[in-house]
Amino acid sequence: MEVRNHTLTLIVNNKPDVLARIAGTFSGRGFNIENISANITLDPTVTKITIVTRGDTATVIKIKKQLKKLVDVISVTQHENGSSQQREMILFRIETDGTNAREITETAEKAGCSVISRTSEDLVIEWTGTAESADHVITLLSTYSIRDMSRSGIVAL
Amino acid sequence: MEVRNHTLTLIVNNKPDVLARIAGTFSGRGFNIENISANITLDPTVTKITIVTRGDTATVIKIKKQLKKLVDVISVTQHENGSSQQREMILFRIETDGTNAREITETAEKAGCSVISRTSEDLVIEWTGTAESADHVITLLSTYSIRDMSRSGIVAL
Repeated sequence: MEVRNHTLTLIVNNKPDVLARIAGTFSGRGFNIENISANITLDPTVTKITIVTRGDTATVIKIKKQLKKLVDVISVTQHENGSSQQREMILFRIETDGTNAREITETAEKAGCSVISRTSEDLVIEWTGTAESADHVITLLSTYSIRDMSRSGIVAL
Repeated sequence: MEVRNHTLTLIVNNKPDVLARIAGTFSGRGFNIENISANITLDPTVTKITIVTRGDTATVIKIKKQLKKLVDVISVTQHENGSSQQREMILFRIETDGTNAREITETAEKAGCSVISRTSEDLVIEWTGTAESADHVITLLSTYSIRDMSRSGIVAL
C-alpha cells in the first residue's frame, strides 16, 4: 500500500467537542495528523479545518467515511495535488550578532521572505509558500542561528 | 470574570493521540478552540501547536495546568499581547467577471495581499497579518464575490 500525505478539509459547526472527536477518529486508526489549520469561516458559527495526514489510501477512505458520520461535521473533501492551492506560513526568529542582520535580510528576501520585526538581537521573518518549498527555505535559513520557528498547518483552497 | 482570547503554544511529542487529548481538555471544560495551527518543528518528532481559546482567565489557568499533566506534552506557554508576534494567513478565491480582475488585484495589493493564481474566472489571493487586521481585509474583499476562503490559525513566536 502506498503511504503518502492526504490533505482533507472539513466544514464543521463551531462547537467545543468537534475537534476532539475528529482528532480521535484519526488516532483511533493509528493515523497521525501531520499538521492542522482551523479557523472560522465568513459565518463565525462554522469552522473550516484542514488536516494533512499520512497513510495508505484505503485507510484514508475509511477515515473520511467515519468523519462524515460525526455529529456537527457538515462536509469532508479531499484535495488532490495540482488541482488545489495548498500553502503554509512559517515564522522564524533568527539571532543576529550585530554584523549579519543585513546579510540575513537579503538572503531571506531573495527567498521570498519578509522581515516583520527587528531588534538588535534578532529578526522575525515571515515566509509563505507550498509545503514542498518549505524545506528549502528552512534549510536556507538554517545556515543562520534559528532561535525559534512556528509553522501553520496547510491552508488549502 | 473577563472573557477574552488567550493564545497558548504547546510543544508535544508527534504522536497520534496527543491532539485528541489536548482538544478534549478544552472541551471537557466547555471551552472552545477558536482557532488552531500545528506543524512539526525543526525536530520532526516534536510538534508545535498554537491554540487560541476564549474564556475567563481563571479557567484558562486550570486548563494550562491540566495540559501540562498530559503525557507527551513537553511544555505549555501563554503569549501575552504586545510581547509576541501573532500572525495568520488567509487565502481567498474571488470571482472575476472579466472586467474587474485588475481592480480587484489593485485593491488587494494595496491591502498587502498577493495574487498567487489567476484564471479567467477567479483570482486566488493570499494575505498575512495580525488577527486584528484580518477583519479589515475580509471586509474590504467582501465588496467582491468571495467564492471561498481559508484561514490558518494563529501562528505565534
